[in-house]
Amino acid sequence: MAEEFKVTPWEVTGDIDYDRLQQQFGTTPVDDALIARLAKYGDVHPMVRRGIFYSHRDMVPLLDQYDKGNRFVLYTGRGPSGNTHLGHMMPWIFNKWVQDTFGVEMLFQMTDDEKFLFKEKLDLEDTSSMAYENALDFIALGFDPKKTRIILNTKNIDKLYPIALRISKRVTFSTARAVFGFDDSTHIGQIFYTTLQSVPAFLPSVEAGRQVPVLIPCGIDQDPHFRVTRDVAPGMGFPKPSLFYCKMFPGLSGADKMSSSDENATIYTTDTPKAVKKKVGRAFTGGCVSVEEQRQKGGNPEVCAVFKYNYYLFESDDAKLNELAEKCRKGEILCGECKMCLTEKINVFLEEHQDKREKAKDVVGSMTYDGFEW
Amino acid sequence: MAEEFKVTPWEVTGDIDYDRLQQQFGTTPVDDALIARLAKYGDVHPMVRRGIFYSHRDMVPLLDQYDKGNRFVLYTGRGPSGNTHLGHMMPWIFNKWVQDTFGVEMLFQMTDDEKFLFKEKLDLEDTSSMAYENALDFIALGFDPKKTRIILNTKNIDKLYPIALRISKRVTFSTARAVFGFDDSTHIGQIFYTTLQSVPAFLPSVEAGRQVPVLIPCGIDQDPHFRVTRDVAPGMGFPKPSLFYCKMFPGLSGADKMSSSDENATIYTTDTPKAVKKKVGRAFTGGCVSVEEQRQKGGNPEVCAVFKYNYYLFESDDAKLNELAEKCRKGEILCGECKMCLTEKINVFLEEHQDKREKAKDVVGSMTYDGFEW
Repeated sequence: MAEEFKVTPWEVTGDIDYDRLQQQFGTTPVDDALIARLAKYGDVHPMVRRGIFYSHRDMVPLLDQYDKGNRFVLYTGRGPSGNTHLGHMMPWIFNKWVQDTFGVEMLFQMTDDEKFLFKEKLDLEDTSSMAYENALDFIALGFDPKKTRIILNTKNIDKLYPIALRISKRVTFSTARAVFGFDDSTHIGQIFYTTLQSVPAFLPSVEAGRQVPVLIPCGIDQDPHFRVTRDVAPGMGFPKPSLFYCKMFPGLSGADKMSSSDENATIYTTDTPKAVKKKVGRAFTGGCVSVEEQRQKGGNPEVCAVFKYNYYLFESDDAKLNELAEKCRKGEILCGECKMCLTEKINVFLEEHQDKREKAKDVVGSMTYDGFEW
Repeated sequence: MAEEFKVTPWEVTGDIDYDRLQQQFGTTPVDDALIARLAKYGDVHPMVRRGIFYSHRDMVPLLDQYDKGNRFVLYTGRGPSGNTHLGHMMPWIFNKWVQDTFGVEMLFQMTDDEKFLFKEKLDLEDTSSMAYENALDFIALGFDPKKTRIILNTKNIDKLYPIALRISKRVTFSTARAVFGFDDSTHIGQIFYTTLQSVPAFLPSVEAGRQVPVLIPCGIDQDPHFRVTRDVAPGMGFPKPSLFYCKMFPGLSGADKMSSSDENATIYTTDTPKAVKKKVGRAFTGGCVSVEEQRQKGGNPEVCAVFKYNYYLFESDDAKLNELAEKCRKGEILCGECKMCLTEKINVFLEEHQDKREKAKDVVGSMTYDGFEW
């Protein structure tokens, strides 16, 4: 029997069995038919081909609407509790592909209130200043400044609150407890918070005065929130948002999810080349205890964090990825070399990213929702 | 044994035993010492002398602070669910006396979010337009426009929300359930709402950057909210607000609380003289079944709604009030005459009030908190 795991919007522990999680949540596998359908709009993103974005809700009706000329709005977000790491960037990179492929508007919600409420030690000043830093990383990925607006919950609360109130009137404590696992010791802010995460799914319809479809590509850990969103939508006269869910980005230590709680196994967007080299150097791999043994028996890319990084983010060419796996299994490439290659790839990416991140400071002020000032 | 009664911020039923309620809530009786203390600052308001404002929390330390030059800010509010009636006006009239007597700043909070959340059939458009109408009545009472600011929760949420979040982090569901009697079917908006009602108690300190005392004169049914406020205050670095609680204004039907659910027993500020005459004409009195019997046995002012109206609002002269009671008990004045006198008093009051209410339209825009537009 698989080890116990737990996935909530605020906690991911244990070895995640993504198939079981999908069953628990009741989401739909991304199948060949959906991948073929997506291929009509452009090159299918490697994260879809490789089963990283692996589960969904109502992608087909969303695409049907799109084909009829009813464009969706893209919505994803970030809980600003610390510096951006590669795990945060992964779904954003996918969102960028969706924006480019479908030419759609995007809402990016920064939930500074959430992080304040769910992180004991953070205050609101921390979370909103972190939001600014995180927004630079988001913008640096190249989202269209004319089609992309960044929501910061505490700054846009005047527009969000009336919709959040309407949502809250339709969600009982009983439901919130069942969906999120709340109990008597849960704070009343935590209980209310989910309403804020639903709002951007309805905002495009509120703004347009008609039913605007919404697509939310994000980590599957967020599904509890969006189950609530989808439940209340019809009664409020809004379409249920569609979801496209990805697996968690792994940590360098081999953990299922990259997390700031393990700093040495986490690559931040502001890391220096030296820091990256050190962290990748310590990564968990599928190698053997000695060079000789590995030359003879080969390594195991399935469990290797370095290989996973190539798989998730740093080798988009399937042929090259397969070649790398093959070489590893045959003992033709050793962990040291593989780590050096990944370090190089990450540092090339970060050098360019950090440059774009600096430039993002010039536009971050113009991309705020409703024109709020940072 | 006394009949069962229930008093929450959202429901008042049964015959209220105000002494028992005070014991249940743990508030302190207004005693002669406090009344004597208040007399130092000016003529003690009839509502205090007559035991209408009958219970409090921490009035003495508040006055001690005042004597040392540390002025309090006054805070009261209104849940805008319908037209203003005399029951709403009563505590406002007292607040006006406090503002005049102590020369203090005032915050008036209109909880349109609360009424939306707790009244099944109201939408936010209803409650915010009602807030405007209610604000006119409040202003008409003559609050100093330079010292009085009106908060409308949905309009001022940008300033209120960060403080509400900080409060919410300190209130568990367990506490909210115990204080308000919530259960599994309570909506998550209702659960969160109390934080908003706490905010104005802390706002003066937040604005001034130092500990500013706050006094909240209001109906004792609001005590559950302010128990929460007082519990969280020290941990947040704010002084606990002081409370001055009144009994509920009675209905014309003899009910303990005037309520819009019984329109015929409720006098609205916009009522015509004819409507007032009709409603007072139907009022429950302490009279006998026949004129002869009443002439002989006398009436009972203790249970008479008409007498209560004089007691609560329309006869501030104690000697005249006692004379009226005496005449009633002796059968020297009958219900018809008493009703005519009250009708006259109410109509004189309303005529003047309606005039001031019209003039309030000129200043209502300038008295909004943070300059929001209605």
